[in-house]
Amino acid sequence: MQIEIPVKIQNDLILKAARGQETGRTPVWLMRQAGRILPEYRKVRKSVSGFKELVQTPELACEVTLQPVDILGVDAAIIFSDILVIPEAMGLPYQLIENKGPFFEKTIKGLDDIDSLKIANPKEDLHYVLEAIRLTKTELDGKVPLIGFAGAPWTIFCYMLEGSGSKTFSKARKFLYTQHELAHQLLQKITDSTIAYLQAQFEAGADIVQLFDSWAGVLSPQLYKEFSLRYISQICDSIKNQHSANSIQRPVIVFAKGAYFSLKELGKLNCDVIGLDWNMDISESRKLIGETKTLQGNLDPAVLYADFQTIKNETKKMLNNFGPKQHIANLGHGVYPDTDVERVKCFIETIKEYEF
Amino acid sequence: MQIEIPVKIQNDLILKAARGQETGRTPVWLMRQAGRILPEYRKVRKSVSGFKELVQTPELACEVTLQPVDILGVDAAIIFSDILVIPEAMGLPYQLIENKGPFFEKTIKGLDDIDSLKIANPKEDLHYVLEAIRLTKTELDGKVPLIGFAGAPWTIFCYMLEGSGSKTFSKARKFLYTQHELAHQLLQKITDSTIAYLQAQFEAGADIVQLFDSWAGVLSPQLYKEFSLRYISQICDSIKNQHSANSIQRPVIVFAKGAYFSLKELGKLNCDVIGLDWNMDISESRKLIGETKTLQGNLDPAVLYADFQTIKNETKKMLNNFGPKQHIANLGHGVYPDTDVERVKCFIETIKEYEF
Repeated sequence: MQIEIPVKIQNDLILKAARGQETGRTPVWLMRQAGRILPEYRKVRKSVSGFKELVQTPELACEVTLQPVDILGVDAAIIFSDILVIPEAMGLPYQLIENKGPFFEKTIKGLDDIDSLKIANPKEDLHYVLEAIRLTKTELDGKVPLIGFAGAPWTIFCYMLEGSGSKTFSKARKFLYTQHELAHQLLQKITDSTIAYLQAQFEAGADIVQLFDSWAGVLSPQLYKEFSLRYISQICDSIKNQHSANSIQRPVIVFAKGAYFSLKELGKLNCDVIGLDWNMDISESRKLIGETKTLQGNLDPAVLYADFQTIKNETKKMLNNFGPKQHIANLGHGVYPDTDVERVKCFIETIKEYEF
Repeated sequence: MQIEIPVKIQNDLILKAARGQETGRTPVWLMRQAGRILPEYRKVRKSVSGFKELVQTPELACEVTLQPVDILGVDAAIIFSDILVIPEAMGLPYQLIENKGPFFEKTIKGLDDIDSLKIANPKEDLHYVLEAIRLTKTELDGKVPLIGFAGAPWTIFCYMLEGSGSKTFSKARKFLYTQHELAHQLLQKITDSTIAYLQAQFEAGADIVQLFDSWAGVLSPQLYKEFSLRYISQICDSIKNQHSANSIQRPVIVFAKGAYFSLKELGKLNCDVIGLDWNMDISESRKLIGETKTLQGNLDPAVLYADFQTIKNETKKMLNNFGPKQHIANLGHGVYPDTDVERVKCFIETIKEYEF
């Protein structure tokens, strides 16, 4: 590992909040903040042939990663990428079809398919993400922290089995019931790849990472424990062990959309922050998760369609429900692409100006 | 109202369970039991030009409604129809596009669109459903009860605004925040139509009805209370008032998929049965809903992809978790169309043979 003297981060509110420290005010960032809401993003997007070219060109990924920091004034950048780079690095290339979503020509059907997958080698297969992180860190020059991310193994598994989005992911769930052992084999391979990938993101300069379990909500509580939480737990433990061996501490956020039934178990993970979606009642969630974790979220993204006064009121209500400590403000899901930038700014400014 | 001497129902276990009475064994039916899982259904479906022709031809709707009673041995029939007959009766015709789902050419955009909608007059606009119910009741000749149904107002509203299915129904949710009063106007019109429709189903012979709130899970707890529960509550109250005026008692089931955050409020509704989806923990749900309601559900539909022994074990586990009283067995959502009929039978037989 290359040892560099890290640049001191000037606005480290998100890192402090993640560690449970006092922050003065609540920090804020948005899922999908680098994206279609910004005209500046749409201009860059238009200059390339497709979304994947943007993801795979470090200079451009860096450029759109920085945009929301300057334009929106968020307290962190999140590297512009996609969770599906992992299946691709393992041997299943994806396409992103405009207005339709992801599509995999090859999917996983049985043992042979799983055997043919490799454990991702981030430095070779995902060098473009790591390069984008390095570039972004240089450009940020310590202004705000940089968030890295990956999909949780269950969510990646869903796409590998289904080949595209789905309302029920019933093919993926069928595999859990009919190919129990193979499902675990595949999830382990994804987990090993993800651990290597997140570790490489940290080494490249990420200050904090988030695991997205976007399809947590399609599993029963029992299956979620066996086929998702087990692997998220491995990832958290592995990162924390590597950190303590290297005497560093970089926070981990887990966002399991729809996993209200698992909030108690999520609270026991070896991570720092639990993301809440907008269905989750804040005080109920706090009770279930316990007092040790910082919570992230959770305004309904549709609130940002409302008038400015409603946005302010709903944002303040959310801040009050979370309280002044152990909270990173965010939406309860990614910002919708057709949201007006001025309304996004109103959300962010309300948070930054709020006094408890 | 025409007064007829009702035929005595021989197997009335579902009605007894709904009323909280002893049943000897747990009764069972399946959401989407009349449908693509049965070769007999697929044969009838092939004989017509489209799904809508099936829905609108009472003899055929009756035929496919009866199939699962005879073939699967379920304890109730559910009338073969679609929740989207209500928007159509109000003035928004729908199509069902094969492998894609519902599509509305006209959607609701503002006041003029809402004003142009009428309150459905079931005896004129939905005579084909009522005729199918009458035919089915005659054919059933008291064998098992017949379940009628409608979509909950919020779910119907979603389709009227969006024009098709959606992962987020963000257009519909946007309308709640930007056109607050209009949203209530539209929901009230849908509610009035639904009350008239369910009352007409009862008069035509339905023994019990279910309200499907399929898109409950996209709303925040606060919005769910204001824009969905309020109208479900009106429907329940209206049915119960009409019943007590006529000295009859026909049970109402409310199934709000994904509304785990509202289980406590659902428990206060003037209805008899609350349906649980497979994400909902059975004993937690019982605690939140309270002791007065019968619960329905909630096996993960994907369990029916497993081997027979797993199906038996998981079904028994579910039965044990619900206990011997106040339970109507079902899946936690509609049976998936590619489920093997023999496995569906295994689920049903395990329930019918189970001894507590």
